[in-house]
Amino acid sequence: MTSVKSHISISLDGFVAGPNQSLENPIGEGGMRLHEWAFETDSWREQHGIEGGDPGVDAEVADEVVQGIGAYIMGRNMFGGGHGPWDESWRGWWGEDPPFHTPVFVLTHHPREPLAMQGDTTFTFVTDGIESALAKAREVAGDKRIGLMGANLDQQFLAAGLVDEIRIHLINVLLGGGRRLFDQLPERTELEQTGLSQTDGVTHLEYRVVR
Amino acid sequence: MTSVKSHISISLDGFVAGPNQSLENPIGEGGMRLHEWAFETDSWREQHGIEGGDPGVDAEVADEVVQGIGAYIMGRNMFGGGHGPWDESWRGWWGEDPPFHTPVFVLTHHPREPLAMQGDTTFTFVTDGIESALAKAREVAGDKRIGLMGANLDQQFLAAGLVDEIRIHLINVLLGGGRRLFDQLPERTELEQTGLSQTDGVTHLEYRVVR
Repeated sequence: MTSVKSHISISLDGFVAGPNQSLENPIGEGGMRLHEWAFETDSWREQHGIEGGDPGVDAEVADEVVQGIGAYIMGRNMFGGGHGPWDESWRGWWGEDPPFHTPVFVLTHHPREPLAMQGDTTFTFVTDGIESALAKAREVAGDKRIGLMGANLDQQFLAAGLVDEIRIHLINVLLGGGRRLFDQLPERTELEQTGLSQTDGVTHLEYRVVR
Repeated sequence: MTSVKSHISISLDGFVAGPNQSLENPIGEGGMRLHEWAFETDSWREQHGIEGGDPGVDAEVADEVVQGIGAYIMGRNMFGGGHGPWDESWRGWWGEDPPFHTPVFVLTHHPREPLAMQGDTTFTFVTDGIESALAKAREVAGDKRIGLMGANLDQQFLAAGLVDEIRIHLINVLLGGGRRLFDQLPERTELEQTGLSQTDGVTHLEYRVVR
């Protein structure tokens, strides 16, 4: 079966966002610290249409976010455009040629017609929950992976036992508070470690859920 | 200044003990899973007076708990004997020749005369808090490290900003609940990674607190 993969940066004390999250600072105080490792990589920059950057281990890891993926499921915050009914002039954070090049299923409470972008990326808006989004993603992913995008989404999929692979970027910082990735999961879950690498400021860990 | 080192096993979701801790099961459901990596090592077995066991990376890591340490600070639960005033016939979980071979300062609310054991281990009972225990440990540790023993103690020292080195054994399991190691620390803390190794079921991480 198609593997569902979560890909997320956390602090050593387990937070995906720092304390005092707000509309102005959605990832909280110090939260950007969790993502700095990617910003200077050539692959992250290429994904985001920015020139330059460095190759190396971090770049290879950042590249995994878009390699070998047949479909994505994305939380609404990752697509952007605020809360409530859609302003359809908003076409996502990702530009007219998003880095995905696959179907992307955006979880939202508010219906919207699909958006076809350049480079084979399509955004389809799913209003009936994660199981429905997963079924739709499985239909199109073939034998490739399904990528999850967004901490909120990762939490929902983890709580439902629907994640097959967990890629953690463990950042050398204790944020002291904020929003946790792993919080009150319903059952004990054994993991098999499938990857490990380390660079300046981050340890990249990869696990497969043992079922 | 003498370095204060914490040395602790946690699940990937950050727990030092599983859910439903009780007197009968003080490390909670699944909590023993966090310590299994050490039990088959020759060094852990030697520390606990058990024959056999295997050498290797895990054994080297387990050996660090007692190498290069000039003094320990230990929570009462690590010394044992229950709660409340002491039954002085209780001389600790560690046998008559404990593995420490240094002064050990046991934090407790209940006074007790020091205990001199075989092999240069002495247990001194400290009733006036972690700062006092740390001052006493510094007096005797020389240029060696001070080792912290016990999750409760680690949390108190972390919250007070008194830990210099953090040795994490990250176990390939999501316990789903229980007692966290890192919980609401008072401030953001940058770390420098000083060690990384992986064996079957565990990733050993080492950090130095950047001040």
